[in-house]
Amino acid sequence: MGYDPNNIFAKILRGEMPCHKIYEDQETFAFLDIMPRAKGHTLVLPKKPAVNMFDVHPDSLCAVIRTVRLLTPIIKSAMGADGVVIQQYNEAAAGQTVFHLHFHIIPRYQGVPLKHHGTTPQQDEILAQNAAAIRAALEKAGL
Amino acid sequence: MGYDPNNIFAKILRGEMPCHKIYEDQETFAFLDIMPRAKGHTLVLPKKPAVNMFDVHPDSLCAVIRTVRLLTPIIKSAMGADGVVIQQYNEAAAGQTVFHLHFHIIPRYQGVPLKHHGTTPQQDEILAQNAAAIRAALEKAGL
Repeated sequence: MGYDPNNIFAKILRGEMPCHKIYEDQETFAFLDIMPRAKGHTLVLPKKPAVNMFDVHPDSLCAVIRTVRLLTPIIKSAMGADGVVIQQYNEAAAGQTVFHLHFHIIPRYQGVPLKHHGTTPQQDEILAQNAAAIRAALEKAGL
Repeated sequence: MGYDPNNIFAKILRGEMPCHKIYEDQETFAFLDIMPRAKGHTLVLPKKPAVNMFDVHPDSLCAVIRTVRLLTPIIKSAMGADGVVIQQYNEAAAGQTVFHLHFHIIPRYQGVPLKHHGTTPQQDEILAQNAAAIRAALEKAGL
């Protein structure tokens, strides 16, 4: 299956759909998942089109994982989390639902189980609060 | 918490513990998880000591994700999987049990749920068979 330029993340990258943006650089873009598995659940994407791990250019993938590394401690600390899980799904059989490569940064809180993947939409004002807290922490860190 | 040079993956990297090795290059090392969540479950590590995402050097992390990208399609095809999940755990609260950074490459098979993390040891001869199949596919691909 080839890359569909009308997938929802492509629309977000083009600014045609709104999102709670966390971070952006030349090669990557990060925003909050609207159906978070935990508070602060963030998605990191390459700007270059790629369906998943099977067609992404290695340099683009490197840029994405560098952004994941940059954001993970900031998100953990801004959200008061105890740990963080990184996940990335390839193909529908693995749970991929949007076919633009993305890494999930999912904060974990001691004793709090993860919600199921993509089932519970979060209220927009709560997402906005969390995004603002993470952006403030990034700014404080000079990022 | 600092890096413990006696963690089990450090011992595997030093050759002090056996493993079903899949792949090795200058910066990374990959072998089968002995308690696989699915057939072909592989771990990819940086050779340089790092506890997790919070202390890994970005270049070392890039090398690891490049190896993940290299191995993922080969493992999927050698195991006859339908998709692949990539996971990486940071801190005990997130499910990290060995404190040397590692990425999980977990093949997914249509209709087959994942086993729980780190609960069911696989028979050694089955691991050896799967490792041999993946190594043969890597060799065929010139890797």
